[in-house]
Amino acid sequence: MSRLGDLGERGLIAKFMEFIRPEGSVGPGDDAAVLKRGVTASTDVVSFDRHMAAGMTYEQFGWYSAAVSFSDLAAMGARPVGFLAALALPDDLELQAACDIMSGIDQCAEFCGTGIAGGDTKKGPGIVTGTAIGLMEDRDPMLRSGARPGDVVCVTGPLGGPAAAMTAIDCGLETEDARQCLYVPIPRVEEGMALAASGVVTSCIDLSDSLGTSLNILCRESGVGMDLEYDFLPRGPDVRRIAEITGTSEEGMLLDFGGEYELLFTADRNGLDVLYEMGVEFHIIGMVNDGKGPELIRDGVRRVIRDGRY
Amino acid sequence: MSRLGDLGERGLIAKFMEFIRPEGSVGPGDDAAVLKRGVTASTDVVSFDRHMAAGMTYEQFGWYSAAVSFSDLAAMGARPVGFLAALALPDDLELQAACDIMSGIDQCAEFCGTGIAGGDTKKGPGIVTGTAIGLMEDRDPMLRSGARPGDVVCVTGPLGGPAAAMTAIDCGLETEDARQCLYVPIPRVEEGMALAASGVVTSCIDLSDSLGTSLNILCRESGVGMDLEYDFLPRGPDVRRIAEITGTSEEGMLLDFGGEYELLFTADRNGLDVLYEMGVEFHIIGMVNDGKGPELIRDGVRRVIRDGRY
Repeated sequence: MSRLGDLGERGLIAKFMEFIRPEGSVGPGDDAAVLKRGVTASTDVVSFDRHMAAGMTYEQFGWYSAAVSFSDLAAMGARPVGFLAALALPDDLELQAACDIMSGIDQCAEFCGTGIAGGDTKKGPGIVTGTAIGLMEDRDPMLRSGARPGDVVCVTGPLGGPAAAMTAIDCGLETEDARQCLYVPIPRVEEGMALAASGVVTSCIDLSDSLGTSLNILCRESGVGMDLEYDFLPRGPDVRRIAEITGTSEEGMLLDFGGEYELLFTADRNGLDVLYEMGVEFHIIGMVNDGKGPELIRDGVRRVIRDGRY
Repeated sequence: MSRLGDLGERGLIAKFMEFIRPEGSVGPGDDAAVLKRGVTASTDVVSFDRHMAAGMTYEQFGWYSAAVSFSDLAAMGARPVGFLAALALPDDLELQAACDIMSGIDQCAEFCGTGIAGGDTKKGPGIVTGTAIGLMEDRDPMLRSGARPGDVVCVTGPLGGPAAAMTAIDCGLETEDARQCLYVPIPRVEEGMALAASGVVTSCIDLSDSLGTSLNILCRESGVGMDLEYDFLPRGPDVRRIAEITGTSEEGMLLDFGGEYELLFTADRNGLDVLYEMGVEFHIIGMVNDGKGPELIRDGVRRVIRDGRY
């Protein structure tokens, strides 16, 4: 019998999906679940081991642990109504560090328009499991499966900041703005609600698993292809500079790194005026077609976009 | 600066409560949170280390990890509408064990009338963080603070089974029925909804932290006292026998052990007919008075009931 280490996290989830009884009009498999009466929920496990980037404070770690779940609500277009924080922390952790984590969670919840509804604390190796709860109100949830040929492909903000920060840290370079993207990602909650309310967005996903992976998921779930224009991708702070100084691929930074929390969405090209009027920031990065999967066009050369490595 | 090990889990939660911004008409501090539109939620951390009793299977561990959160919803009177399962499991765990845990969670969710809405899996030491989500529908949530002098004190079922099982395991005795109470606790979800709908229940809490602790919490939160009749406490399977064989205090088994998932509630003594008519199983164990805290009357002798040791 195989062991979990051989299978990986996605393999394990696929295995579970073979036998669990799913609940919700949107069940496991989208960014967040949508249950009866438009109740929306998402849970994420974040650990010191894996998610505490070099130089990150405990307060930023707390913010980050909440932001990942609020970002999932944002991708559906839900309004956050509460956050539950379950902490499994080491006995020898200083009280101040635990309070800093909780304070970071609390600040992120406030930024998202809600507060702490409950939680649990136990002894553990430094794991925070956050659950964000929201309501769809009168909006339809934005799914991963609605993109149609002819739609435009958009993102809500600049990309590559977290990748630039990680690269800079590895090379001992300073880059305060990029680090901020990595340490304090902004869940696009207001943007998500506006996109869902607009009536012109056809699919949406957050970029936590990288642009490359998210593009592939939207294409697979919607049964479409996409052409992405490399020059259209909006660059985050210091991305070009760090790529040049360190000799790292800028294309890789934009497409292959996770830890991004902008929203990727497709929209009816005839409805873009609605989005402009709402004042939502977005950048068109390509077009949906009837092909298979996403392709990148750079300097007239076309290549297939694969999943990111994150 | 002190460390978490010195402070304990309740101390840490008290510290957090000093600065977090609470959300919900019932916020952190009751069995579950009640948010906008009657959305109810509770999260619990359960670990191999601490909650996997000797002889417990992975499937039972999964059931248990879900039951604790559903029990919190039950104590409010909410209808479960979804469960989120976040698993942090060791790389060397067999795939079958992980599937057994998930299958146990799935079965408990189905028992509670719902299914798996989402989750997350990461590498970890064997920690399951479950979040149960429910709706109050048209019922008012049952709080810990509503008991009034003159009310009766009740439980939904027999007590001491988990304590008997743990004692039997320590002493190498067989006791299958008691083990079942320990390994597969039944969240009283249907009973909770009926109690909340009855309109005669004035306060409610589950017994996960022991009868002693739960009585003290109801008295403190409601500002009342209680007289409990020792002979009225309904005994679970094998409790008396295991107490006698092992020379363990039966009183301790009934009052001091956690891992019980019956509901403890107070009700208007003039409204008991409503509960009888609804067909809810319950046992009257005492009366609320205007004293301070719970007291036990046994063989005509009265003593103060303290928090359980769980």
